[in-house]
Amino acid sequence: MPTTTWNRHHVLTLADFTKAEYNTVLQTAASFQEVLSRRTKKVPSLQGQVVANLFFEASTRTRSSFELAAKRLSADTLNFTSATSSITKGETILDTAKTYLAMGTDIMVIRHREAGVPQAIATEMDRLGVKVSVLNAGDGQHEHPSQALLDLFTICSVINPENPRLELLKNKKIAIVGDILHSRVARSNIWSLTASGAQVHLAAPPTLLPQLFADYVKDDGVGKCEREKIANSQSKIQNRNLFIHWELEPALKNADFVMTLRLQKERMTGHLLPSLREYHQMFGITCTKLQLCQPNVKVLHPGPVNRGVEISSDLMDDPEFSLIQAQVTSGVAVRMALLYLIGSGKS
Amino acid sequence: MPTTTWNRHHVLTLADFTKAEYNTVLQTAASFQEVLSRRTKKVPSLQGQVVANLFFEASTRTRSSFELAAKRLSADTLNFTSATSSITKGETILDTAKTYLAMGTDIMVIRHREAGVPQAIATEMDRLGVKVSVLNAGDGQHEHPSQALLDLFTICSVINPENPRLELLKNKKIAIVGDILHSRVARSNIWSLTASGAQVHLAAPPTLLPQLFADYVKDDGVGKCEREKIANSQSKIQNRNLFIHWELEPALKNADFVMTLRLQKERMTGHLLPSLREYHQMFGITCTKLQLCQPNVKVLHPGPVNRGVEISSDLMDDPEFSLIQAQVTSGVAVRMALLYLIGSGKS
Amino acid sequence: MPTTTWNRHHVLTLADFTKAEYNTVLQTAASFQEVLSRRTKKVPSLQGQVVANLFFEASTRTRSSFELAAKRLSADTLNFTSATSSITKGETILDTAKTYLAMGTDIMVIRHREAGVPQAIATEMDRLGVKVSVLNAGDGQHEHPSQALLDLFTICSVINPENPRLELLKNKKIAIVGDILHSRVARSNIWSLTASGAQVHLAAPPTLLPQLFADYVKDDGVGKCEREKIANSQSKIQNRNLFIHWELEPALKNADFVMTLRLQKERMTGHLLPSLREYHQMFGITCTKLQLCQPNVKVLHPGPVNRGVEISSDLMDDPEFSLIQAQVTSGVAVRMALLYLIGSGKS
Repeated sequence: MPTTTWNRHHVLTLADFTKAEYNTVLQTAASFQEVLSRRTKKVPSLQGQVVANLFFEASTRTRSSFELAAKRLSADTLNFTSATSSITKGETILDTAKTYLAMGTDIMVIRHREAGVPQAIATEMDRLGVKVSVLNAGDGQHEHPSQALLDLFTICSVINPENPRLELLKNKKIAIVGDILHSRVARSNIWSLTASGAQVHLAAPPTLLPQLFADYVKDDGVGKCEREKIANSQSKIQNRNLFIHWELEPALKNADFVMTLRLQKERMTGHLLPSLREYHQMFGITCTKLQLCQPNVKVLHPGPVNRGVEISSDLMDDPEFSLIQAQVTSGVAVRMALLYLIGSGKS
Repeated sequence: MPTTTWNRHHVLTLADFTKAEYNTVLQTAASFQEVLSRRTKKVPSLQGQVVANLFFEASTRTRSSFELAAKRLSADTLNFTSATSSITKGETILDTAKTYLAMGTDIMVIRHREAGVPQAIATEMDRLGVKVSVLNAGDGQHEHPSQALLDLFTICSVINPENPRLELLKNKKIAIVGDILHSRVARSNIWSLTASGAQVHLAAPPTLLPQLFADYVKDDGVGKCEREKIANSQSKIQNRNLFIHWELEPALKNADFVMTLRLQKERMTGHLLPSLREYHQMFGITCTKLQLCQPNVKVLHPGPVNRGVEISSDLMDDPEFSLIQAQVTSGVAVRMALLYLIGSGKS
Repeated sequence: MPTTTWNRHHVLTLADFTKAEYNTVLQTAASFQEVLSRRTKKVPSLQGQVVANLFFEASTRTRSSFELAAKRLSADTLNFTSATSSITKGETILDTAKTYLAMGTDIMVIRHREAGVPQAIATEMDRLGVKVSVLNAGDGQHEHPSQALLDLFTICSVINPENPRLELLKNKKIAIVGDILHSRVARSNIWSLTASGAQVHLAAPPTLLPQLFADYVKDDGVGKCEREKIANSQSKIQNRNLFIHWELEPALKNADFVMTLRLQKERMTGHLLPSLREYHQMFGITCTKLQLCQPNVKVLHPGPVNRGVEISSDLMDDPEFSLIQAQVTSGVAVRMALLYLIGSGKS
């Protein structure tokens, strides 16, 4: 492991992550990626520690990824899913967390459909003066930091597998496409990617773009212009290089990476979308549309993918363009890194 | 570990527990409590043994506690919950147990909504002449021995953390408040606490008190007196120091410990209770009501708590009075002790 | 472990299993059976490897058996059940498998209610050029190889516990009784048992016999004869010693082993069966009916048993005749053998 200083006790948001922290995660994950290529993929780092996966919202992929990461660090794991929980018995979420604390949990990995729950639990743990760490595994439409960090690691590793670091993304053009409004993945990615100095371009239908971005529009008049005017233009936001598009093409043009987001099919019934077919035509990524991008463009998706909606089926399986499998593999290494950095801070 | 003799093969009830057995559990749990305060909280005692958690009734708290206890003794664990079981396919409970026996299970931890199921499985295992042990993790309204033992350990550890033992409770006044009728926790606690020589005072509305206690009423006429007469009096039961109250105040008066019980909200629809609010007014424990007790009184609850029903929310979070978190921590140590004592008996 | 050559990468079907492969599994399982009789039942063979149990169809028994087998080989395990899966989110089964591949899974144990799913996943893994192995844990009405191998091991171990091997079954008469039409267990058993040189006799009501066996009927005219004619006769199939009966008695006569199959009670509503009671009278195995067999006949059932339907309750519990518990125990040893043989092939 690289010798680094790491003082962060919880990982709840990427909003205040420093460049040094991003690089520590990237380097530590790179070390673990190397461990994972060995036949015996375990290290004893967290032996005797307990990682509790408290998933108040169902998840197979993220829960398995954290569970495997914990096991490969030799931690003991406890799994909690709300279906079999005391939540239905009237216990509060903080009480549940305190129960796992009292059992001797060292790290809590928390997913909840409400934004702010991991933060609330972390605040309570700090108030109690205990050493338990909280990892946000996705809270409502707020953040999903480990997903954004694994996306970052995946992208940086494409550019330099030996030495992935934040600076590699400087001036790269990265498009984030899809349901940005409801996406905690997008929110976390915007923090990490703009911190890297990349040019980040969001593309979504107006109904799936968050109102909040209006606050960031610079005082060059773009923020005040008519809806029609914005639609086909770009708006540079703050001093971060964040651009918003209501059409796909300007975001894809010369892009180095295209991050697609999962579309919740429920959005259809909420009248935020025309049809899945029309959505795919306008914002779905295909091999043809990729020709607008850099020749060596790569495509990401946090999964699970609705084939033929966010991404065409052939593109998804094309190893030349798709990083989807690499993201899953990175996920274990990055989560090992997070658990390791947080867990080692305890001793 | 203390060198003790332990001959009990199953833990199904506390009805026939000897003082020596109580003290062996308390001392062994104290040793494990010490282990749990270390950074590496594992011991190799049950390495290679299999602990199967057969939970025919859903439980997060107790199942996680047993699972963690088993893992910290280095056992392998198998989890079974009825939702995904063969029970729905027509297999009997004994057949399920025998299947886990045949797979090589060493200890079965069993919860079932019917009283007597763990006993029935233990009897079958003995009939088959196999060495498998059965631990009752709660059966219907019958018993919940590990909960009562962890309550006992928690209370004794308050009095003497270095050397918790049964004798410490002699002549202490302990109130048990709430739905005694439906509580397996109360039933097990009555066995252990009266065995300790404590003065045990039950307080509940008449509709939530078991008829069976009538059998214990002494021949001083109290058992035969009118309902109104008993309501405001005390009835000393057998030669054990067990008292029954239909009001809260006489039970709380000068109490050293107050054990509250979970109220099933379903009782409301069964017309056994007026309203939750009225219940809280009459039997809910608050900081104000605690002034009736000894100044250093402590409050327990087996969890999960309905805040503002059995206990006021502020009291629950008050570390000066509440032992609720300590109970959860004790739970892991006491369950390690039970698994260890039973499991070591096998070799 | 015996030093053997084993080149099979996936275990999907027994259709093409060689005698050498059967014997390698039997001998390896015998070694692990010995390991399981020790107090410490673990071996480090698969340390650091990941076994993912992907059960798209619920199962307690088979999943627990594979999980325990993996843990006893010191592998890390991941459990996936469809209830908490991304399948409901629109992800394809192959995408789910590829996600577990990307996480670093070494062996996938797959159950699905559709025939062919494990084969499809194995084909995809081979196409991708990865070293992941697939074990079929039951696919639709197709095959259940590990069940047939544990049945084989159980039977051979009865004849020679020291040295179970395929040749021991030569000329033994083995009856398979019950719902052959819908049974993946029967299909796999027919491959292994006929390969052994045993005389295999199927007995079932005509509505529960597969049409496909008609293809095997020899050109001695039996295949063409009237339904009534076949009903009370035997039809020798191919050059394998497989016989079909529409009545129980000719199958039981002088049988050395009787394998019963689970009856899905749903068949009742499909009008394939009269009543459970009538079924039990005609095809249920009882102590009385066993008098037709060899004196030392043994009875098997893959479980879970509908007591009083496929087998009478007293017979099921009779250790003189019933191998049902032995089958479960064999299951862990045989699955350890399969995981070991496949997993060791990777290094």
